[in-house]
Amino acid sequence: MEAYLDNAATTRVFPEVREMMVHVMEEDFGNPSSKHTKGITAENYIKEAKETICTQLKCKPKEIIFTSGGTESNNMAFIGTAIANRRAGKHVITTRIEHASVHEPMAYLEEMGYDVTYLPVDSTGRVSVEELENAIREDTFLISIMYVNNEVGSVQPIEQIGQMLKKKHPQILFHVDAIQAFGKYKIVPKKLGVDMMSVSGHKIHGPKGIGFLYIKEGTKISPIIFGGGQQKGMRSGTENVPGCAGLGLAAKMVYTDHDAKIDKLYAIKDRMVKGLQAMDGVTVHGLTGRDSAPQIVAAGFEGVRAEVLLHALEDKGIYVSSGSACSSNHPGVSGTLKGIGVKDSLLDSTLRFSFGAFNTEEEVDYCLDVLKELVPMLRRYRRA
Amino acid sequence: MEAYLDNAATTRVFPEVREMMVHVMEEDFGNPSSKHTKGITAENYIKEAKETICTQLKCKPKEIIFTSGGTESNNMAFIGTAIANRRAGKHVITTRIEHASVHEPMAYLEEMGYDVTYLPVDSTGRVSVEELENAIREDTFLISIMYVNNEVGSVQPIEQIGQMLKKKHPQILFHVDAIQAFGKYKIVPKKLGVDMMSVSGHKIHGPKGIGFLYIKEGTKISPIIFGGGQQKGMRSGTENVPGCAGLGLAAKMVYTDHDAKIDKLYAIKDRMVKGLQAMDGVTVHGLTGRDSAPQIVAAGFEGVRAEVLLHALEDKGIYVSSGSACSSNHPGVSGTLKGIGVKDSLLDSTLRFSFGAFNTEEEVDYCLDVLKELVPMLRRYRRA
Repeated sequence: MEAYLDNAATTRVFPEVREMMVHVMEEDFGNPSSKHTKGITAENYIKEAKETICTQLKCKPKEIIFTSGGTESNNMAFIGTAIANRRAGKHVITTRIEHASVHEPMAYLEEMGYDVTYLPVDSTGRVSVEELENAIREDTFLISIMYVNNEVGSVQPIEQIGQMLKKKHPQILFHVDAIQAFGKYKIVPKKLGVDMMSVSGHKIHGPKGIGFLYIKEGTKISPIIFGGGQQKGMRSGTENVPGCAGLGLAAKMVYTDHDAKIDKLYAIKDRMVKGLQAMDGVTVHGLTGRDSAPQIVAAGFEGVRAEVLLHALEDKGIYVSSGSACSSNHPGVSGTLKGIGVKDSLLDSTLRFSFGAFNTEEEVDYCLDVLKELVPMLRRYRRA
Repeated sequence: MEAYLDNAATTRVFPEVREMMVHVMEEDFGNPSSKHTKGITAENYIKEAKETICTQLKCKPKEIIFTSGGTESNNMAFIGTAIANRRAGKHVITTRIEHASVHEPMAYLEEMGYDVTYLPVDSTGRVSVEELENAIREDTFLISIMYVNNEVGSVQPIEQIGQMLKKKHPQILFHVDAIQAFGKYKIVPKKLGVDMMSVSGHKIHGPKGIGFLYIKEGTKISPIIFGGGQQKGMRSGTENVPGCAGLGLAAKMVYTDHDAKIDKLYAIKDRMVKGLQAMDGVTVHGLTGRDSAPQIVAAGFEGVRAEVLLHALEDKGIYVSSGSACSSNHPGVSGTLKGIGVKDSLLDSTLRFSFGAFNTEEEVDYCLDVLKELVPMLRRYRRA
């Protein structure tokens, strides 16, 4: 049996998405900037993808900018607003448990003379709205808070933050990294008080190399990539038409029968959590059930090195992650696990199990059975 | 009959490339940063693609950075070196006939306080090496010259420029936009004296949304997109694995039996040029034959509006471009056509015919037949 339980790292594309992309690559391969029908046909795929996304976000097509992925979206949100709002201030607020695609461009802003406040989180992985409010200064121009944490699945109080900001500090831009949240939650940025939001295709069974940044109409932001003026000059470069079309279709699919899909994910997650909690010396980090994201479970295995367990699981056809795959090029323990106060002995013993549309309860049972066999064995091995 | 003669705008992917991408999306869909075999398998596609490219460019894998396309490659070359070489000077030299993905980031550098010299070209679309040399100042840190012009197919004296720079001004970085040249010419950056070179996938029957920047070992350059540290920190973001694999395979394919492929392109081009030259009131711009790039022919049709002719051709299944598709969002006449001294009456009457691996001489004959029928008719219509 094979069980790919690393869907927070990346997902397999839906067969329908792959078919759509093949069709666009083969038949409707035109350049959207071309004036002939092949160009117009290509442009229509982009329009359609934007419309699908706009239906979900209840926003306007011009508020969606396609990018090469979540990382570029986050970079654009920060660097683009920093360029465009030079006079509005040089202070930014974010959290200590953001993804590298947030904290690294933040570090770049620091190099450029900006001041960044990194808020702590509590043991459930959530920031305090009050602490956030207290951190606001006169020169704060941007706040960025992730929706769902990629390592432990904690969910931030985005709506409370957004409402507070819109009420008390409407001039501050509010960005949300929704890369692990889009497709899992029904998100209406305007209702949440969100000005910018980053989304990635390959986390929702869409293509790699594509994502988008939602930018509320009227937001002052500069492009960070300049050229032929595509996407109304906000993101130049020939559009990745198969990618846009694939992302649009994936977005449509994940939001079709959405409640049932999410119920299924929670059923899988709950089964996994219960199974883990029943095991000796295993700690499930953060909140569980509906208080946490439906697709992510992080657990510490006392007395076992995460990487050893990861490879032992792999031998059984089970694919999981130690920490976050996206930042595995940065050696060292996770900021998130430390941030939520995971005890030292578990920092290096934590695995992430993450679920997608193709997973089944049988796979969870298989994974649990294998863990029950492997974990005690690896503990003995370690002691030896 | 259908004749897609707009391959300088974009190309149809090779069937083999599409098959490879489908396989990667469906079977080997892992995240290259994942530590399990699905991650390693994904990473191997990237390594293999880099090796293919390195075989062509005779360079090292670490000298290749995958980007989201030619536009990002150009932006990275300019903004990334500007960030990293702040103390080396604030003067840049380029030409008046660069693609928008060069002149727009240059305009951004100007906003940021840089000084940019735009060199003129002669009637064949070439810069003078002597004029370039005279334009060099003490604070010049970067020179960017395109290899093949996308509108008229002129070829710049890259090797002469590179040799001169390496000999007299080795501290100046030399960037080449090779987006229309890669696949058409055998390019060895080190031999040419080139420090950075931009390439795009979708111009060589590879995927859209992928490209690379060659960066000579030791070049001082900063990333422009920050995050998880992928590609040794030079370009963060989960790699577009199907895109990388597709680009690698396309690169391999265009350079297999390369001479025969280029001979075929020149045969097609020569046939087109001869046919056009035989028509009344038609001017082929720039040089022809081996003195020009094999895939691009630009011609002015006296007394006919380019856009009208473009749509009339389209009705017959022939797809061409008026000016450059990539910059068609910028209204106004072409910088290149003006730059090479095309007379005013032809600026708005010029079409670009551009060829790819799928074109045939029959398609050229069909296009010429249709032109012979349409052009006199449209001239009469205009006079009426």
